[in-house]
Amino acid sequence: MTWRASVVTLFPEMFPGPLGQSLAGKGLRDGRWAIDTLDIRGFATDRHRTVDDTPFGGGAGMVMRPDVVDAALAAADAAGPDRPAVYLTPRGRPLDQALVRDLAAGPGVVLLCGRYEGVDQRVIEARGLMEVSIGDYVLSGGEPAALVLLDACIRLLPGVMGAAESAAEESHANGLLEYPHYTRPADWQGRAVPPVLLSGHHAEVAKWRQTEAERATRERRPDLWAKHVTHDAAPGAMDGRPAAD
Amino acid sequence: MTWRASVVTLFPEMFPGPLGQSLAGKGLRDGRWAIDTLDIRGFATDRHRTVDDTPFGGGAGMVMRPDVVDAALAAADAAGPDRPAVYLTPRGRPLDQALVRDLAAGPGVVLLCGRYEGVDQRVIEARGLMEVSIGDYVLSGGEPAALVLLDACIRLLPGVMGAAESAAEESHANGLLEYPHYTRPADWQGRAVPPVLLSGHHAEVAKWRQTEAERATRERRPDLWAKHVTHDAAPGAMDGRPAAD
Repeated sequence: MTWRASVVTLFPEMFPGPLGQSLAGKGLRDGRWAIDTLDIRGFATDRHRTVDDTPFGGGAGMVMRPDVVDAALAAADAAGPDRPAVYLTPRGRPLDQALVRDLAAGPGVVLLCGRYEGVDQRVIEARGLMEVSIGDYVLSGGEPAALVLLDACIRLLPGVMGAAESAAEESHANGLLEYPHYTRPADWQGRAVPPVLLSGHHAEVAKWRQTEAERATRERRPDLWAKHVTHDAAPGAMDGRPAAD
Repeated sequence: MTWRASVVTLFPEMFPGPLGQSLAGKGLRDGRWAIDTLDIRGFATDRHRTVDDTPFGGGAGMVMRPDVVDAALAAADAAGPDRPAVYLTPRGRPLDQALVRDLAAGPGVVLLCGRYEGVDQRVIEARGLMEVSIGDYVLSGGEPAALVLLDACIRLLPGVMGAAESAAEESHANGLLEYPHYTRPADWQGRAVPPVLLSGHHAEVAKWRQTEAERATRERRPDLWAKHVTHDAAPGAMDGRPAAD
C-alpha cells in the first residue's frame, strides 16, 4: 500500500516542489509514496471564494474560516481514510525523529497548511488535529513546514533510500548529535584527518566517534544532553552503532 | 541593496521552488531579494565530477569532499561578499526567530546544503561556517532546511509582507506561543466563539489573549515557559501587544 500525503493548502503549486527531485522524486515516480493537494479556495462557498475573515476581538491579520477549512479536510479524508491529520503551526508540539518515524510507519498523513494568522481554533478542536511545529521561528505559512515534514518521512519509506544514503548512523538516531566526518584528501590545506580514523583499529574508531558525539551534544545542545543522560540509552547507543531504526 | 541568497547545493533545481510563489515570489520578482545557486558538482576536478568519498574510519554513507565544497563556497563568496555562510546540519545551533531577524537584517546569506552523511569537518572549520539546525529530525539533505530558513528571512524583508500578513502578533515574537484565533461564523457546528472576543472590551480581549498565550506556552512548551519567566519580558509582552520587531 502506497504511503499517501494529502496537503490542504492555498498554494497547491508548491507541491511536490523539491520533493519531486532527488531520491524523494524517484520514490514518487516509483510509487513508493504519493501526494495530492486540496486547494482550500475550492471549498469556499461564496462567489468571491472567501477563505478568511478578520479575527473576532480585533487585531492585525486574517484568520482562515472553520467551515471552509473543515470542508477541505473532509475531502482530504475521503482521498485516503485513517490517516492522522496534522496542522502545521508554531503552537504545535515540536517535530522530532520519533514522530517522523511514527508517521512514516503509518498509511500516510493529511497536512493542513495555514496562512495569515492561522486557522479558526474550532476546526482544530472539532477534527482533533495534531498540532506540530518544525521549530521556533515564524514562516510565511505551513507549506515550507509541510515540505520538511514530508521529506523527513519519505526518506524512511521502504525502497526510497539506497544503501549509500543509509539512515544508519546519524544525528538524533540515538539522541546524540553525530560525530564529525572526514574523507579524502587526507591532507587538505595543511589540515590533517584525526590519526585514529586512519589507524584501522575499529574499536578505537568507534570509541573516538562516541566520545566526539557526546562532546558535541554536551557542548552544543545541553538540552539534548540532559535528556540523554537521564533516559536509558537506546540499545547500541553506547558503542557508536545506530539505535534501532 | 538587494538581500541576496546564494545556495551551494547538489540540487540547484530545487530553488527557488516554493519561494517563487506567493508573497516571497512577488518579492523576488520585485527585486526585494535575489537568489543564485552554485552546483557543487561543477566544482569537482576529476572527469567523473566526484563530489564525495567514503568516510575515513569506515562506516556507511559518503562524505562530501572538503576541496570541492571549499571551491563552491569561494565562488559563492565572490557572488556577494561579506555575507554569513551557514551550513545546515542537525549538529548546528537551533534556528530561532532571533537568528532569523539577524540574518534578515544583513546583506544576505550563503547556504551550504549537505547530502549523504555530511561534509568534511575541515571545510567547516577552515571557513568558520555557522552550523544551523532547523530542528531535531533528519532530512534527506540541507535543501528543505535552506528553503525554511530563507522563507523565514524573506518574510521579514522590507516590502515583502503586506499589512494583512503583518508580522505583528505571532508566536515567538515575544517568547510566548500565540493565543487561539477565531473568525466568522460566530456559531459553527454548535461551537461558539469565546464571548469576551465579541464583547468589544479591548482591555478584556487583551487580557484574555495574554492569559491564553501564557497557558498554551506553559502547557505545551514548558521549555519556552521556563525561558520566559526567567528572562525580563520584552516591552509590550505583558499586555498582548507585540514585542519590538
